[in-house]
Amino acid sequence: MASNKILIAQGGGPTAVINQSLVGAILEARRFREIDLVYGARHGVRGIVNEDFVNLTQETVANLERVAVTPASALGSTRDKPDIKYCQEIFKVLQAHEIAQFFYIGGNDSSDTVRIVSEEARKVGYPLRSMHIPKTIDNDLVGNDHTPGFPSAARFVVQAFAGANLDNAALPGVYVGVVMGRHAGFLTAAAALARKYPDDGPHLIYVPERTFILDKFLADVKATYERLGRCIVAVSEGIHDESGEPIATKLAGSVERDAHGNVQLSGTGALADLLCDEIKGKLKIKRVRGDTFGYLQRSFLGCVSDVDQREAREAGERAVQFAMWSGRDGSVAIKRTGAYASNFELVDLESVAGKTRVMEDDLIAKSGTDVTDAFTHYLQPLLGGGMPEAHRLRAPSVKKVLNR
Amino acid sequence: MASNKILIAQGGGPTAVINQSLVGAILEARRFREIDLVYGARHGVRGIVNEDFVNLTQETVANLERVAVTPASALGSTRDKPDIKYCQEIFKVLQAHEIAQFFYIGGNDSSDTVRIVSEEARKVGYPLRSMHIPKTIDNDLVGNDHTPGFPSAARFVVQAFAGANLDNAALPGVYVGVVMGRHAGFLTAAAALARKYPDDGPHLIYVPERTFILDKFLADVKATYERLGRCIVAVSEGIHDESGEPIATKLAGSVERDAHGNVQLSGTGALADLLCDEIKGKLKIKRVRGDTFGYLQRSFLGCVSDVDQREAREAGERAVQFAMWSGRDGSVAIKRTGAYASNFELVDLESVAGKTRVMEDDLIAKSGTDVTDAFTHYLQPLLGGGMPEAHRLRAPSVKKVLNR
Repeated sequence: MASNKILIAQGGGPTAVINQSLVGAILEARRFREIDLVYGARHGVRGIVNEDFVNLTQETVANLERVAVTPASALGSTRDKPDIKYCQEIFKVLQAHEIAQFFYIGGNDSSDTVRIVSEEARKVGYPLRSMHIPKTIDNDLVGNDHTPGFPSAARFVVQAFAGANLDNAALPGVYVGVVMGRHAGFLTAAAALARKYPDDGPHLIYVPERTFILDKFLADVKATYERLGRCIVAVSEGIHDESGEPIATKLAGSVERDAHGNVQLSGTGALADLLCDEIKGKLKIKRVRGDTFGYLQRSFLGCVSDVDQREAREAGERAVQFAMWSGRDGSVAIKRTGAYASNFELVDLESVAGKTRVMEDDLIAKSGTDVTDAFTHYLQPLLGGGMPEAHRLRAPSVKKVLNR
Repeated sequence: MASNKILIAQGGGPTAVINQSLVGAILEARRFREIDLVYGARHGVRGIVNEDFVNLTQETVANLERVAVTPASALGSTRDKPDIKYCQEIFKVLQAHEIAQFFYIGGNDSSDTVRIVSEEARKVGYPLRSMHIPKTIDNDLVGNDHTPGFPSAARFVVQAFAGANLDNAALPGVYVGVVMGRHAGFLTAAAALARKYPDDGPHLIYVPERTFILDKFLADVKATYERLGRCIVAVSEGIHDESGEPIATKLAGSVERDAHGNVQLSGTGALADLLCDEIKGKLKIKRVRGDTFGYLQRSFLGCVSDVDQREAREAGERAVQFAMWSGRDGSVAIKRTGAYASNFELVDLESVAGKTRVMEDDLIAKSGTDVTDAFTHYLQPLLGGGMPEAHRLRAPSVKKVLNR
């Protein structure tokens, strides 16, 4: 087998910088005379089993650089989660095309796919190099300080809450913003960095790492509203009760099912609406508004962290270097080496694959509704430069004439 | 009465540039030696009747310039829609504080307030100069080419749909984005400018200027999905049936009411969710996602059109100039004078107050689900510079080996 062909694919949810990793890997691969051809699979593992490949060797650097700054997976993605049989199909296609190196950019499911493919190759003695390049806005890959894609999504969340806070200060009421994150609360917690002045929101933050108790939530909102005349809440879509049941399902239990027999809870505005209904109904607050950040938080064109861009790019470059020089398969992991500086290590696929990192205890405040300074220090440098800032009037009050 | 005191207030929904108008008016007023004091009312007309004023004369230029680039009403806003009695209260306070000029930055409701206050002053012969400064993301003020605030919100909508289109191309399915606009479809129509390549979304656009027929909508989505394997839809929150009943209310009729006896339809994700349910249920398409852009489209920190910023600033400056030199009350209106250039005119309050502009027929395609080139040419220059762009890979396909 001629060891001159490599294959790259993108899996899972798109991010603002996943194409940086793709382009980093492509351009770095071109530096090596051992590599003649760089293939890309369209729509992740689905494209591999369908042999739906494009020849990235023929892409110009000019166009690759434009694609690098474009969000969402340029090769297309997939939600397929391959089992062993599926991975055997993948491996069969890799063999047929004499692929020497396989790079999969994705989250923990994708790393698990790489792990199984790596094992299949080893079993039959096929000299395949299998590399996982990290990506996820959820920041839930173990062994990584953080994952490419998370900082840009966090920046969106910060800018969204900073703006919602200003809007809510102008027209006071309760605002509930629901943020992605089923198990890990990092992205929701990022909302904390939207605050500048002591009375800025979000005033309450609920992450899936802590049990959500509805009565406690209502009491928290009530207390904040009474203190400030307004209240901004950041909520993870994954909040759940002590038994692990998602709050969205739980609250939906009190409403009737729709014409099709079910209430949509994921990828919909249901959780925000249900929490707003509870606040209106039980606290008798009139102006209560809910937003579900939905796909905007991961796809909005033009909201990106330059730190995230650089790191995602380098993760792709490093993956190729590790493939060429390390002599082993693995997952590229970001390590923090300074304040702020980072470097990349190759870690075992087994240590990452299928595992889920959640927020460490020292990042969540004792109240359970805020983050600690440790979290702020952790996230701040990742958000990147040029962050827009909010400012206030400081004009003194005028004495009343009529109503003294 | 010493004609040396002016009062400025902000009403209605905040925008990305309403503080530009505020700061434009304050700084321009300071140029006139006839003006000694610049007051601001906190939370619009509510702050006037409560005599809740701040002395903006004491604000530094440095801070005012920072506030100008901060979104949302820095003075605070209100949803109060004053009737004649309320306006008499306003006028009483203006008299008590010897206000010579009253500036209200807002939409058509606010212009109606200015009109009534102006009349009250005239009735009793009080020499008050009353000026309305336009603002609304809905772009629904008559007599204006467009209104400050709309271009920045339109820019958000464009960037959101451009990103959603990329995400949807990576993970194909149906995506429904619900945009603000109860009567005027301008902001929803802006989604059209997210398109770059011929198969880019949004593929269907529904504005309140056209009757929404559910069966037609489902047939449109089906046809697009069969043609492209995906479909992106932009929908105004204000879509309604032939009788004028909002679709949100209509569809909600098929689901049960919640524990509090009602289904929330405004400021919630309900419409997107209901439309998605229809698509899933009737078209049997599996991946259907809905986002409601909610408050993000008007409050997101860091998404602004520089053209909008400049015009909003100048609208505030012009309002003061008109107040000093025109000898009459009125509303400042933006007129287009070139491709692209604009100027400001003072129009009668009666011609703007309480009236609603909707999209002109020549801006909507005959299909009723798209815009015309005229709309694209109208909106393009308003979006401002530095708009992020999306790019695609152009790599050729690789021949199949196994599945020839």
